[in-house]
Amino acid sequence: MDRSPFEDYRRQFQPPVPAALAADHVTFKIGDPTESCEDQEQVKQFFPVTYGLPVLDMEIAEAPATPPAPIKMGVIFSGGQAPGGHNVLSGLYDKLHKINPENQLIGFIGGPSGLLDNKYVVIDADFIKPYRNMGGFDAICSGRTKIHTEEQFAASTATARLHQLNALAVIGGDDSNTNACLLAERFKADGLDTVVVGVPKTIDRDLMSPVGIDTSFGFDSATKVYASLIGNIETDCLSAKKYWHFVRLMGRSASHITLECALQCRPNICLVGEEVQAKGQSMEQVCQSMVDIIKARHQKGMNYGVALIPEGIIEFIPEFGVLIKELANIIGPAYDNGIIMTPEQVLPKLSEASQKVFAFVPPQFQLQLCTEPDSHGNPQVSKIETEKLLIAIIEQVLEADEELTSTKFFNTQSHFFGYEGRCVPPSNFDATYCYGLGQVAAILGVAQKTGYMACLRNVANHVSEWVPCGLPLTAMMNVEVRKNEAKPVIKKIMTDLSGRPFALFCSKREEWAQTDCYVNPGPIQYYDGEGPLRAVADRPTISLEEEARGRAQ
Amino acid sequence: MDRSPFEDYRRQFQPPVPAALAADHVTFKIGDPTESCEDQEQVKQFFPVTYGLPVLDMEIAEAPATPPAPIKMGVIFSGGQAPGGHNVLSGLYDKLHKINPENQLIGFIGGPSGLLDNKYVVIDADFIKPYRNMGGFDAICSGRTKIHTEEQFAASTATARLHQLNALAVIGGDDSNTNACLLAERFKADGLDTVVVGVPKTIDRDLMSPVGIDTSFGFDSATKVYASLIGNIETDCLSAKKYWHFVRLMGRSASHITLECALQCRPNICLVGEEVQAKGQSMEQVCQSMVDIIKARHQKGMNYGVALIPEGIIEFIPEFGVLIKELANIIGPAYDNGIIMTPEQVLPKLSEASQKVFAFVPPQFQLQLCTEPDSHGNPQVSKIETEKLLIAIIEQVLEADEELTSTKFFNTQSHFFGYEGRCVPPSNFDATYCYGLGQVAAILGVAQKTGYMACLRNVANHVSEWVPCGLPLTAMMNVEVRKNEAKPVIKKIMTDLSGRPFALFCSKREEWAQTDCYVNPGPIQYYDGEGPLRAVADRPTISLEEEARGRAQ
Repeated sequence: MDRSPFEDYRRQFQPPVPAALAADHVTFKIGDPTESCEDQEQVKQFFPVTYGLPVLDMEIAEAPATPPAPIKMGVIFSGGQAPGGHNVLSGLYDKLHKINPENQLIGFIGGPSGLLDNKYVVIDADFIKPYRNMGGFDAICSGRTKIHTEEQFAASTATARLHQLNALAVIGGDDSNTNACLLAERFKADGLDTVVVGVPKTIDRDLMSPVGIDTSFGFDSATKVYASLIGNIETDCLSAKKYWHFVRLMGRSASHITLECALQCRPNICLVGEEVQAKGQSMEQVCQSMVDIIKARHQKGMNYGVALIPEGIIEFIPEFGVLIKELANIIGPAYDNGIIMTPEQVLPKLSEASQKVFAFVPPQFQLQLCTEPDSHGNPQVSKIETEKLLIAIIEQVLEADEELTSTKFFNTQSHFFGYEGRCVPPSNFDATYCYGLGQVAAILGVAQKTGYMACLRNVANHVSEWVPCGLPLTAMMNVEVRKNEAKPVIKKIMTDLSGRPFALFCSKREEWAQTDCYVNPGPIQYYDGEGPLRAVADRPTISLEEEARGRAQ
Repeated sequence: MDRSPFEDYRRQFQPPVPAALAADHVTFKIGDPTESCEDQEQVKQFFPVTYGLPVLDMEIAEAPATPPAPIKMGVIFSGGQAPGGHNVLSGLYDKLHKINPENQLIGFIGGPSGLLDNKYVVIDADFIKPYRNMGGFDAICSGRTKIHTEEQFAASTATARLHQLNALAVIGGDDSNTNACLLAERFKADGLDTVVVGVPKTIDRDLMSPVGIDTSFGFDSATKVYASLIGNIETDCLSAKKYWHFVRLMGRSASHITLECALQCRPNICLVGEEVQAKGQSMEQVCQSMVDIIKARHQKGMNYGVALIPEGIIEFIPEFGVLIKELANIIGPAYDNGIIMTPEQVLPKLSEASQKVFAFVPPQFQLQLCTEPDSHGNPQVSKIETEKLLIAIIEQVLEADEELTSTKFFNTQSHFFGYEGRCVPPSNFDATYCYGLGQVAAILGVAQKTGYMACLRNVANHVSEWVPCGLPLTAMMNVEVRKNEAKPVIKKIMTDLSGRPFALFCSKREEWAQTDCYVNPGPIQYYDGEGPLRAVADRPTISLEEEARGRAQ
C-alpha cells in the first residue's frame, strides 16, 4: 500500500512501554500451578506438557550470568484482522533485536497455511518500518486454515525443523490459540525445541481471562470506529427525525462489541445476545420488546430512533436454533438430490413449535432460509441480514396492531458495520497494547516458555502500571463437543450478565429508550502530545474501565 | 444530545477567519452585473428584482458615518444534513452580535415548515454554545418541505411580517437556494423589507460556481468519513485477499463524492455516472468493464479488490432510463387497479430494446422493479441496492464466460456509506468554512442585500487568503422542465469530465485496477495546534486542491 499523509504522521508514533518492558532484563516471578477453567481432568489428558503451568509475571532483573543464545522465531497471523497486528510484529522485532541483535524473526505468509507450505519472509528493520502503527495484517497477511489433520501437524513440524525455529508466535483468537497449544504439544512430542506462544487477538473481545487478559487487542479501535459511525447516525436521526436506524454490528458469538457501542452512544434500543439466551426469549418476544419502545416513542411524536443489533442475535433465540436444525434436516437431503424446496413444501414437515416460528418469519426470509443452503445443505443463517429481518417482522407486528390506525410512521434505514473497523490504524490504546504484547511474546520465546499466552494485565490503568506476564493457554480451556467429538478449546468469554458493563447498560436503557440521550464519541484521535486532546485520544473502552472499577472495589 | 469527551474538547475550537471577517467594518466592492449561467432571458422573467445583480466582494473599511440599525434575522436548515451546519449558525450569531449586540437571530424549527408554521427558537449565546463545532442540524433541525404553492408563499410572508424580519438565511442545496431566491422576490413583491440570503450546503458538491463557490460545505468532512472507511476496507481486503468489496456511496446525481473517495483511496474500480452517461454506456458495457478488471486480476491470482459505485449510477445508463419509463407506464396503471404485475407479465409489454435490458437484470431485481412501485406507480429505483445489482449481474457474466472453468474465485462483500458521514463533527476545513459563511450571511443580511448566496472564494488556500463575497443566486440558474412546466432552477454542477480531478483519476485508474495502490487516509483528525499533525488535520479534499491548481496555471 501507498501511504497517506496521516499514515506518514502516525508511523512516527513511539508506543510507551511499562517499566518491565523498557528494562534490559527481566526475570519471571513464578506463580502457583494453574488449572483449566473447566473440565480439568479431560483437558489435562490432551496437554501432558503444557497443562498446569504457572502464571509468569515479568519483573525487572539484573543482567543474567550467561546471556541467552540467539534464537530464530516465527510469527503467524491467524483468523480475522484486528487493529494493532502490525504493532505486535514491531514489538516482537524490536524486543528480539534488543535482547540480541543476532535474533531472527520470520513471518509466515497468509496465516497458518504459510507454516504448512513454508512460505515466509524475513522481518527485519527495513521490512517492519512501513507497517509501524498501521492497521491491517497486510505485512504478512492472515488466513483461516486450521491445523488439525495429522498431515498438517507433520507439515508444521517439518517447517519448524527446517528453520530450526526456537519459537513461534501465533496471533489469533480462541480457536487459533487452541491450535497454538496443540502445536506446542506436538512440537515437544516430535522432539523439537520450538516453543509456541499465543497473542490474544480479536475485535470480538470473547478471548479474555480473569488471570491475565483484560481485553483482546483490536476491540478498542474497532468499537471506536463503529461507535463514531453510530454517533453520526444518531446525530442525523435527531436532525431529521424521520427514520429508525437499525444497525447490525459484527460479532457472531459474544455481544461485547454491541454492548460497548451502546455504552458509548446510548441508543434507544440495544439487543444483547447473551441476555436473550439467558431469558429464553422467543423471536416474538424480542421483537415485541422493540415494538413497545417504537410505539411508546411514537405516542410522544418521536418517530425516529437508533437500534443496535449483534449480528448473531437470532442464533441466541432458542426456538430459532431448533428451527434451523429442523430445516437443515429437511432441505439438506433434498438439496443433495438437486432439489430446492419452497417454504410451502417445507412448512408441513416442521414440528408444530417450529411451524409457528417459521410462520413468524417474513416470506422473503423464509425463502432465503430454504433456497440458499450451504454446500452441506444447512440454511445460511449468517447470510441473513438480521437488521432487515427484524425490520420486516416489526412491520408485520405493527400492521397487526389494532391500537394503530397507520404504520406509516415507521420508516427505516439499515446498516451493517464490520469490515470498516477491523483494519483501522490502531488507537493509542491498541498501538501501545499490541507493541507491548509483541515484546512479551519475544521475551517468552527467548526464555523458551511454551504453551503461554503473551499478556499485559491492568491495562485500564496508565501504561506505567501495566504488568507483562505469561498465562498458560490451558488455563483458559474447557472441553466442547465439535462434530461429535470432545475437543479441548479455549472457552469463549461471553458478556457477563452480572458484570458492571451490562449492569450500567441495564440501569440506563429505559431512559435511553424513552428520551434522546445520544452521544457522539467522534472519530479516533491519534494525538500523542500534551494537553486535553491527549485524554480524548488515550481513553480506553467503557467496558474495560467499568470492569477495572469493579475489580478495584 | 449529551456530549462526549471528544465533543467537549472540540467545542473549544475557535475557527480562524480571513481578515475581512475579523475586521469591524467591511464595504462592498461592486462587480459587473451578472447573467444567469443559461437561459438568460427566461430566468430574467422570473426574477425582476434579483436578476443581474453584481457580485459583491467584501473589503475592510472604516467605520461608517451612520452605524446600521439593529436587525432581526431568521435562519432555516433546508434538506439533508451536512457537517458544519451548526457553525453557520454560530458564525451568523457571532457576527450579528459583533455588528450590533441588539441584533437578533431566530431559528425556524424543522426546515422550511418552521417558517410556514412560525415555529422558532431564539438563538442567543447560551443556545448556540453547546452546538459550536458539532455535527448535525439538531439545534433547530431540518426538513424537506418545499415552498411552492401560493398558500405556502403567503404563509412565509405572514411569518416574516409577524416577526418584522429584516433578513432570512436559507442553508440548503440547489433546490433550497432556488426557493430562497423565489422567496426574495416574493417578499419584495409583498412589500416586505426581508432580504433572503442563501448558504451553499450539500455533501454532494453539486452546488458550485466558478464565480464564487469553490465547494459546498459538508463535502470535505463527509468524503473524509467515507474515505477513511474505504481505506480500512482496502487494508482488510489486502490482508485477507479473499473478497471483492463493492462500496456504494451517497450521491444520486453527481459523482463528486465517489470521485473524491477514489482520489483519496485509489480503489481498483470506480464508476463515474457522468462518464457512463457521456459515453452512452449500456448496463452490459458498464459491467463488462468491471468484469475485465476482475478477470485480469484473477489471472494474476488476485481474487480481491475494491469497487466504488455512486448510488445513482443506473440512472446514468441511457437504456436503463428508457426501461424505467416504460415500466412506470406498465406497472403504474395496473397498480392503480390494485394489481401487482410479475416480471413474466411485464416482459412482453416492453419495447424490444427494453426487453433486452430487462432480461439482463437478475430475477430478484426484476421482481423488485415490478412489485415495489411507489405511491405514484413508479419503480423505486432508489430502493435498489445498486452494489448488489452489479454483483448479481457480474456473477451472471462470469458464469457465462467460457474462458472460466469456475467462478468460485469471485466472493463479495457489499457496503453502503451515506448517513454515516452527513453528521460527523465538521473537519477543520468545514468548521472554518461554515463559520465564515455564517459571518458572510450576517453581513449580507445587515447590509440588506437580497437574492445573494453567502460565499467564500479561494478556499483551497490558507484561510488568510479566503475572499468573502456575495454571489447573486440568479447567476447560477437555468431553466428546466419539471412536471411539464418550465422552472428556473439552480443548475446542478456535475463532474467536469475535462476537469483536473477527473483527469487525475483517468491517468491513474489503469494502474490502480491492475496493482494494489490502496491508500488509507485515516479518520478525520481535529487537531488545531502546531506541528505536523496540523497539516494532516487541515488538508482539504483532493478535488478542491486539483481544481485550484488548474486555475493557478
